[in-house]
Amino acid sequence: MPAAKFIYDFPEKNADLFYASKFPCHDAVIYFENRGKKFLVMSDLEIDRAKREAKVDKILSLPVYAKRAEKKNKSYTIVDVLDEIFSEQRIKKLIVPGSSSFTLVYGLKRKGYKIEAGPQPFYPERFVKTPEEKRVILKTQHLVFQAIGLAENVLSKSQIRGNRIIYRGRPLTSEWLRQMINVFLLERDHIGADTIVACGMQSIDPHEIGSGPLKPHQSIIVDVFPKSMKTLYYADATRTFCKGRVPEALKKLYATVKEGQETGIKKIKAGINGRLVHESIQKLFAAHGYKTGEKGGRKQGFIHSTGHGIGLEVHEEPARIGPRDFTLKKGYIMSVEPGLYYAGIGGVRIEDLVYITTTGCQVLGHYPKKLEIR
Amino acid sequence: MPAAKFIYDFPEKNADLFYASKFPCHDAVIYFENRGKKFLVMSDLEIDRAKREAKVDKILSLPVYAKRAEKKNKSYTIVDVLDEIFSEQRIKKLIVPGSSSFTLVYGLKRKGYKIEAGPQPFYPERFVKTPEEKRVILKTQHLVFQAIGLAENVLSKSQIRGNRIIYRGRPLTSEWLRQMINVFLLERDHIGADTIVACGMQSIDPHEIGSGPLKPHQSIIVDVFPKSMKTLYYADATRTFCKGRVPEALKKLYATVKEGQETGIKKIKAGINGRLVHESIQKLFAAHGYKTGEKGGRKQGFIHSTGHGIGLEVHEEPARIGPRDFTLKKGYIMSVEPGLYYAGIGGVRIEDLVYITTTGCQVLGHYPKKLEIR
Repeated sequence: MPAAKFIYDFPEKNADLFYASKFPCHDAVIYFENRGKKFLVMSDLEIDRAKREAKVDKILSLPVYAKRAEKKNKSYTIVDVLDEIFSEQRIKKLIVPGSSSFTLVYGLKRKGYKIEAGPQPFYPERFVKTPEEKRVILKTQHLVFQAIGLAENVLSKSQIRGNRIIYRGRPLTSEWLRQMINVFLLERDHIGADTIVACGMQSIDPHEIGSGPLKPHQSIIVDVFPKSMKTLYYADATRTFCKGRVPEALKKLYATVKEGQETGIKKIKAGINGRLVHESIQKLFAAHGYKTGEKGGRKQGFIHSTGHGIGLEVHEEPARIGPRDFTLKKGYIMSVEPGLYYAGIGGVRIEDLVYITTTGCQVLGHYPKKLEIR
Repeated sequence: MPAAKFIYDFPEKNADLFYASKFPCHDAVIYFENRGKKFLVMSDLEIDRAKREAKVDKILSLPVYAKRAEKKNKSYTIVDVLDEIFSEQRIKKLIVPGSSSFTLVYGLKRKGYKIEAGPQPFYPERFVKTPEEKRVILKTQHLVFQAIGLAENVLSKSQIRGNRIIYRGRPLTSEWLRQMINVFLLERDHIGADTIVACGMQSIDPHEIGSGPLKPHQSIIVDVFPKSMKTLYYADATRTFCKGRVPEALKKLYATVKEGQETGIKKIKAGINGRLVHESIQKLFAAHGYKTGEKGGRKQGFIHSTGHGIGLEVHEEPARIGPRDFTLKKGYIMSVEPGLYYAGIGGVRIEDLVYITTTGCQVLGHYPKKLEIR
């Protein structure tokens, strides 16, 4: 008896479910694979749209099974409905994502189903990008670089007045520049809500999206990672700028991070353990005198991993180039984004995406790595 | 031994977790409540931001517990880390959301923890809006009506040429009008990616967001439901327009839906069963000769529920005004959005949000209900 793969979740929130069904939907849907065929079970409200859009073999009507379940038990639950569907399909064994609801799994076990957890992600083949997936991610990455170009252009056209950067007569803020970037992306059908524009002390916290006036002579991290509304794939890139005079310490920090990124990109190829790539950058940073550790109750140095998988999720876990063992394979698209963060100097991060090949990797798109904006 | 509430999830995806912690985060976090105190357990990368932003009593460092777990078992998992934390806190019994990962729950059970599922939502008190929550939702609803006004204005300024609506010399499409609305929202710090602009045959599918040229003399449904990037709360409203001459059948359909919405709003007050509100609208539609059922393999008529709860989620399940029993209570904010959908005529939906009081309900914000745009 072969086991059927089964997911019950929101396709908009569950990349595996969207990957399998190609059906974007804000309501929870039932998806399963049985004997080589893909099934969706849909409410009346979504069934016509599913018939047009979903890439599955068969679409079943949820109310049909709900009515059967109701006949047997007036206060039926989703478990009873699933039991109707699976009985009809002669399914007795299920493979589900480990993240599946435990009340659902318990309910199905009580009905006699054998259930085991699948891998994480549920479709590990997601890591390997098809030529079409590579194409759409590259297309979004081109747009990301245009957006970073917009930011550089705004900084370039701004004037320094005292402790402020003035654009079109007003002090330029993180919020304003982020909005310009996000509107630019949205006008091109991409969503980039959490775009990072973080300056000075804020830039040393890698997940701080930034707020308040941008300041001259300090590092400004611009990290753009939008999702295409059409393809639902992400891209991701980061550049670090400094408007005005660049302090020597920041200049040296930037050169080191840039060298670290180049070192990483040179090492990456199919078959290598990502941990070795990460460690080579750690060693380089240490050799340049940049220590990673705690200072004043705060972590500083190279405080995150070198890169992450990207695709239908901005972070495709557990694909990481970091301290854990993880073998990079042909067709993976990963970010390479070393960074250094010090309270006295600021934060620097440089990020590109690479497509991994048997002999090395291709950097997707191109944008100069230049810190200073006069 | 009191039970500790425990959630392990992504605050950006889990409204309950954000509701409890007030900490927006794209990474998974550990949250628990023990003996009246709220705890977050954070990675080094997020701990500083959490200390600034989260509304909890104590923030613990994840690596501290991970190190302890690693000492005992080199290939430790999140379950081992949780065991370290809960042992220290003398927690033995956990209440978790029913949606919690079954592998996590099984793992903890194997460690001897007693686990039960909490209600859905995990914090049912979320349904009752505080004055502050009502204020921020109303503020977003005002913006929604401005966005609908933008759409009406664009349609009003357009010209009809044959089978097309021409705006600024170009045929107006669903995509273009949606983009204008979404950019307007984003410029005001709101995200509204799935804004519906659906015309004619597309408008009879309530979840179809719409594509292609908008047509004159047909219904155009504009449904705007953005999330505030600042507060993370949603608002939601719908108006139906028709550019040009309104066919008689559409005019009558519109008047009936409008009467249905008014009937619903009049009936809503604290203590009433939402099912009765829904049925009163169903009866009214039937009395006007609008049948709900299948025709040509497609559901038509009043094919969705009357309303849904709204707050940190656009649909706060299971708060519904629909066919299932659900008692409306003081302080709930619900949508009231009857609709009628017929292949020959088109779709009409009119939606407002109401705040439920002991004597009735307050409609949040105001926008005219007028079908025809000349």
